[in-house]
This record gives sequence, structure tokens and C-alpha cells, in this order.
Amino acid sequence: MSNGAVPNPDPTNFTGADAAFLRDFAALCTFGATPGGGVERQAGSPADGEQRAWLTELLQGNGFTVSFDQVGNQFGLLELQPGAPFVLVGSHLDSQPTAGRYDGAYGVLAAAHAAFRLAAQWKADGTAPRYNLAVVNWFNEEGARFKPSMMGSSVYTGKMTPEVVLDITDPAGITVREALDATASLGQGPGPKAAYAAEIHIEQGRSMERDGITIGVVDSNWAANKYEFEVHGEQGHTGSTVIADRRDALLGASMLVVAAREIADHFPDGALHTSVGQLDVYPNSPVVVPSLVNLLLDLRSADEEILAQADHMLHDRIGQIEKAARVEIRKTGSHCWPVTPYQPEGVALAEKTAANCGLTYKRVKTLAGHDSTNLKDIVPTVMLFVPSVEGISHNEHEYTTDQDIISGLHVLTDVVRSLCLGELDS
Amino acid sequence: MSNGAVPNPDPTNFTGADAAFLRDFAALCTFGATPGGGVERQAGSPADGEQRAWLTELLQGNGFTVSFDQVGNQFGLLELQPGAPFVLVGSHLDSQPTAGRYDGAYGVLAAAHAAFRLAAQWKADGTAPRYNLAVVNWFNEEGARFKPSMMGSSVYTGKMTPEVVLDITDPAGITVREALDATASLGQGPGPKAAYAAEIHIEQGRSMERDGITIGVVDSNWAANKYEFEVHGEQGHTGSTVIADRRDALLGASMLVVAAREIADHFPDGALHTSVGQLDVYPNSPVVVPSLVNLLLDLRSADEEILAQADHMLHDRIGQIEKAARVEIRKTGSHCWPVTPYQPEGVALAEKTAANCGLTYKRVKTLAGHDSTNLKDIVPTVMLFVPSVEGISHNEHEYTTDQDIISGLHVLTDVVRSLCLGELDS
Repeated sequence: MSNGAVPNPDPTNFTGADAAFLRDFAALCTFGATPGGGVERQAGSPADGEQRAWLTELLQGNGFTVSFDQVGNQFGLLELQPGAPFVLVGSHLDSQPTAGRYDGAYGVLAAAHAAFRLAAQWKADGTAPRYNLAVVNWFNEEGARFKPSMMGSSVYTGKMTPEVVLDITDPAGITVREALDATASLGQGPGPKAAYAAEIHIEQGRSMERDGITIGVVDSNWAANKYEFEVHGEQGHTGSTVIADRRDALLGASMLVVAAREIADHFPDGALHTSVGQLDVYPNSPVVVPSLVNLLLDLRSADEEILAQADHMLHDRIGQIEKAARVEIRKTGSHCWPVTPYQPEGVALAEKTAANCGLTYKRVKTLAGHDSTNLKDIVPTVMLFVPSVEGISHNEHEYTTDQDIISGLHVLTDVVRSLCLGELDS
Repeated sequence: MSNGAVPNPDPTNFTGADAAFLRDFAALCTFGATPGGGVERQAGSPADGEQRAWLTELLQGNGFTVSFDQVGNQFGLLELQPGAPFVLVGSHLDSQPTAGRYDGAYGVLAAAHAAFRLAAQWKADGTAPRYNLAVVNWFNEEGARFKPSMMGSSVYTGKMTPEVVLDITDPAGITVREALDATASLGQGPGPKAAYAAEIHIEQGRSMERDGITIGVVDSNWAANKYEFEVHGEQGHTGSTVIADRRDALLGASMLVVAAREIADHFPDGALHTSVGQLDVYPNSPVVVPSLVNLLLDLRSADEEILAQADHMLHDRIGQIEKAARVEIRKTGSHCWPVTPYQPEGVALAEKTAANCGLTYKRVKTLAGHDSTNLKDIVPTVMLFVPSVEGISHNEHEYTTDQDIISGLHVLTDVVRSLCLGELDS
């Protein structure tokens, strides 16, 4: 797939509500569509505003009431049990630059269609669920334009304050508040109260594809240490400054990028993931030795012991690089989290539901962060995966088959039904 | 000096025309002044426009006619021998970001004051020189905002066409034509015809300071190979993409930055200078494995044999990095020049003049490019250096003492007199 085009969703192979889901997914793929077959709709961009308006129409057309909270989280609410808390089901519509179609967007649309099915069934058979139903599009899960990632769900779960978030700026100096205003997404208040949460997402890895599994039941997330570093050197002339006099911030930063990979290579395959995704050079002129580099470096592992070892190695290497490149490396921010489990009763419910649907399933860990990683810290949360072809993600060639996204929608629908009916209430 | 403030020019220690020069230099230092004691006035910026208008007033006030050519080179003309070609004396006022006060600006102002002195003397004593006199402020020597560097003198010397140059854009998409229009610097035609050229500049190295020398007589430039590279990888999720599947463009680019320094370290101290000054990452998002890095890498040496060896090593390393990081490295541009001499008769004239002024002098090579590097390819050209304290350049702490810039002005004045009087005519 990596050099081919991604097939379009094809509703003609399905019928009824499944075909309707694929038609809506095809429509959703057109917002911010890129020539390479992916999408680009960063948080608060015009394309994000357009898809949010489209989702509002879709939700309202199916009888849901749409509202935005104080940091732009978009909710489609169906209150069937007046005053009761909500089962929140959703993901995020925002994307990385030149991203794939599935990351986040599949989860939001699957949530909406699961909710539509349940609403229609309950209306037809007169069921009164114990909890109300909310479809959610969390604001800025990706963190590409506005840092940090998982912004909307972090405020919803009390990990960040709305005041701090609304003043965060993108590289052009535009605030979250301004971006939300520009996309008609700035509401008030903290959103609906949650009883349970559920999310479905593509795996973004290749373990399920390799094992021939359709449904992944996420039982925990990897631990991660994410760091912001500043590498300080001194400006000089690239031509005339003798090498011994140089304090080249870019050399120091480059040694840090290479060290991060070498540390990953020190551990067995798949035990540790390290990366530098973002790196900015100042003054970034052809003939000036750089005086400052800002970069974001992260280390992730399912094994906290390995992560601790790797972190120790990294800090040793930083000291060595400071001497070798005659630079100073300052840590200006960090965001670390341990391995944390999803609630076992939710895992058991998801496994039972997948089995009842006649689908293959296994337990998986999420290497990436998701909004559900936040939600599980306040309410029991179910996280489901469907396979990613070749594990490709954050890439225009990201792809999951129509059959797999439909199967995932079926399991999600049944899980949400169980949550709304109070099946997990102890 | 590197962490201290740069002293301001102090005219009270000098008298007459020397004090006037220091007063004008103090005024010039205020354009685009930075809090750190340097200047920021990139080519075609508002600060560049302001200093150009100031120079126009200064030149006109001293009886010179000011004109701009087709690519914004600014000339102050004094025609004393109607129809004769000109001795061009000057440098450039544009700067790097957060740059020092002396680079280029000293050479332009010294040229103006040398010309004022000669004009006054000749008017007083009735001398009719063989050649006319032009003070020049070459457009965009630095190449920080608009690439390549030495842009104005490259067009003047026929190495680039004005059509190509005027359409070059900065990172914001603004063309050279637009920037010149905005700073009232866009004129017509190729500028005055040259007979000889002269330039004075700070050394930007520490060899003269080390040897206690006041006047450097440049006899050749270093050879340089400057390359633009694109490192191509593939986008992926920094968390979930397994290390073995990654094609991380930033890892490949970082290995190239480190390799460039290792190649410099392979040769004896001072034999080879290597750098990467500019590096841009795409998509440059915290959680995306970069798919593309653009960078500029240069190798410089006074010894063409060493440069050839280093270049060979670099290209070997590129092949190794492509395999190790699973990336593709494409060379998308190159600008290479050999060691080329300044005309020996000009070198001899400068040495004789420095001796007559009672100043210490030695022959030096220029590691950096200068407008005179272009000029010497069309007319005999004299290039003079004055010392740089601690060799610091392209840095707000760039500094040359008042005494040294005054001494340089004296030698430049005498050299230009000799050139105008036809002393080098064979």
C-alpha cells in the first residue's frame, strides 16, 4: 500500500445502515482531501470547521442535540433518561498534516452511526436505557498545530484548565480561542457528565494484521516520557569560524536525534520506541552556525523498567553530547505517563461482544495516546481497535478495509448498548 | 567578549574626519538594532530600506549622485572624468538575523568616507583622477532571506540574470522585486561600468588578532562546495510505528549533520570547515515521523585536494546513511568554487599602502564569500581585512576596535586614491 492509492469506501458491497455508514465516511474523507489520497485538517483550520458543521448537520438530522463545550469539544446528545449521566462515545476529527483518512475520523463517524442505530432501535422497541447517549468529537487530539495533543479530552477530564488551553498559540501566534471562534466551535461549560466512555480507532500498528485479528481490545497503554529540549550554542559564520571555536546547536541536536535511535536499537525489537518528530533551528540561515534548536523527543515502552533504563541512557548521552558539541541542552518541558490499564470489566465486555459478533479478537496495548487514555482515568472506558493495513498511520496511505471498519462499527454498537443499559454497573 | 556587551563607537577619542566616521558608524548601528547589541536588517526588510535611505542622504549631502540598478545595488557616483569607468568601492548593509554591527556595514561606510575624503582633497587641490568614483552598497550579500548570497554582485558581474533574481522568493513567498519595491530600491540598468574594485571587511576569524596584525591583505578565497540536500523518508506515527518499519528523514538528516563534522575532524585543525546552517523538517509535528528534511551543507578549504577528499568522504557517507536510516538523499542544488586569487598587483598595492601608513599587515585568505569575490572575476580588485575580536561573526557580539576600523579606513582611502589615479594601469 505504501506507494499505491488508498481505495475509496465502496457502499455497493454493503446494504442498509452499513452502506449508509460507508457513504457518510466517503463524504467525510472529502474534507481537507489531499492530492495524495489523504486529508489535512488540523485542529481549528477551515477544513476542521467545515467537517464540524457537517457533523452537526448529520447529528441533528438524526435527532441529536449538538453543543460545544468551553474548549470546542463537540457533543451530539440524546437524552432518553432525563438527568442521568451520559455514555460518551467518540474520537476526534482533526488530523496531522498530510495525514490518513482513518485516524480519529473513523471513530467519530462510527460513534455517530452506532448511536443512530441504538436510538432507532430504542425508539422502535420502547427501551429506556439507564444512561443517556453522547457522540463526541474531541478537540485537537493530534496536537500538530496546538500543543499538547489530546487537548479537548484533557480539559474534559480535568488534567488541564480551559483558561490555559484557550491562550495556547500556534506557530503563527493564533490562539486556540481565536481558532475555535473562527470555526464556530467555542461553547460554554464543561460538557455533559460521563458515566462510561467508548472509542474505536485503527490500530496504527501491524500486530492485528499479522495475526489475522479483526477486533483489538485495548487493555492498557504504553508508558511514555515526552521531553521538550532546547539546545543552546552560539551563532558564528559557517565559513570562517574555526571548528574548534564552534558551539553548533544543530550539531548537538543532531547527535541527540541519533542517540535516541541508538538507544531504541539497544533494546530488543519492539521493546522501545524513540523519536524526534519536531525540530526547529535558529537562525536557520545558510551561512550561520545555529545558536538554538528546539526539539521534541519521546521514549515509549510497554515495560516501565525498560523505559526507566532508556531514560537513564538518554540523560547520560545528553551530558556526553554537551561536551562533544560544546552546547548546553536544557529540558524545558516534560509529559510522562506510566502503563495504565483500561478497566478489566470493560475489557471483558468488549471480548464477550466481539465473540458474540463472531469476530476474531485479542488484547492489544495502545502505543499511541488517544482521547480514551484520558477518559479511562475518570470513568470505565472501552477502547477497540480495527487493523491497519501494513500498520501505516499519520500518512496519506493509512488504510483499513471496508469490511473491518464495518465489523468494528458492529462491535462498538453492541458495546455502547451494553454500557447504556447499565451492564457494567456494579 | 562573547558574553559581554559590544562597546559603542566612541568619537571622543578621535578628531576631524575620523571622529565624523565614528559618529556616522554609531548612527548606522541604530538601524535594526537588537536588544543583544547587534543588528537585524535582512535584505529588503524595513530596516534595510531605512538604512538605504539614510545612506542616500549621506552620499547626496557629500555631493554624490545616488542611483539603484536593476537588482537594487545602491551606487553613490562622483563623476570627475566624464565618460571614464569607475572605481567601485563598497560592501553590503544587509545582515543575518541577530547579527553583528560590523559585517558589511563597516565596509560600506568606510567606502563612503574614503570617497568623501578623496573628493574633498581633489576638489581642494584640483586633481583630475583617471577614473570616476562609486560607493556601492551591494544588495543581499548575506543570502539569509533570499538565496543565494552575494546576489547583487552576482548580477553585476554577469553570474546571474536580473530576471531570475527578481523572481526569487523568501520563505513567506515575497519576491525580490516586491522587497526592492517596498524599500524604494528598484532601479534600472546594469549600474556604472567598473575599472577597479575595492572592499574592506572584518576578518571574521581570529588569525589577525592572534598575530597582532592590523591590516589583512586578501590574496585568495577558500574553495567551497555548497550543497542543497533533500532527505526523503516516510510519515509514520512516532508512537506506534515499529522502529524496523521507520524511514525517518530527520534521523537521516541528523546522521548527515554529524557526518559533516566528523569529516572536518578527520583533517588537521583548520584545514577543512564543514557546516549545516539551515535545516527544515516536514511535517514537523510532535507525533509524526518526518518524511522530508531540506538542508544546506557546505565544505570549505584553502586546499583543493583536501576539499576533494572531503567531498568524496561525504558522498561515501551519504550512501551509508541511506542504508542505515532507510532514507533517500537527493542533491537538489550545488554551488562550488575553486581557490581563486585576487590580482597580485592589487595585493602588492595594498601591502605597500599599509606599510606607508605604518601599520602591521599580512596576507590572508578569505574563508567567507564577499562581494569582492565576485568583482575580482571582472576587474582587478583589492580586498582588505581588519581584525575581529575573538573571531566572532554572524553574532551580536561581533566587534572590531575603533582604532582598527579607523586604521582600515586610512588604508582603504589610500588604496582607492591609487586606483583612481590609475596606478595599477599596465
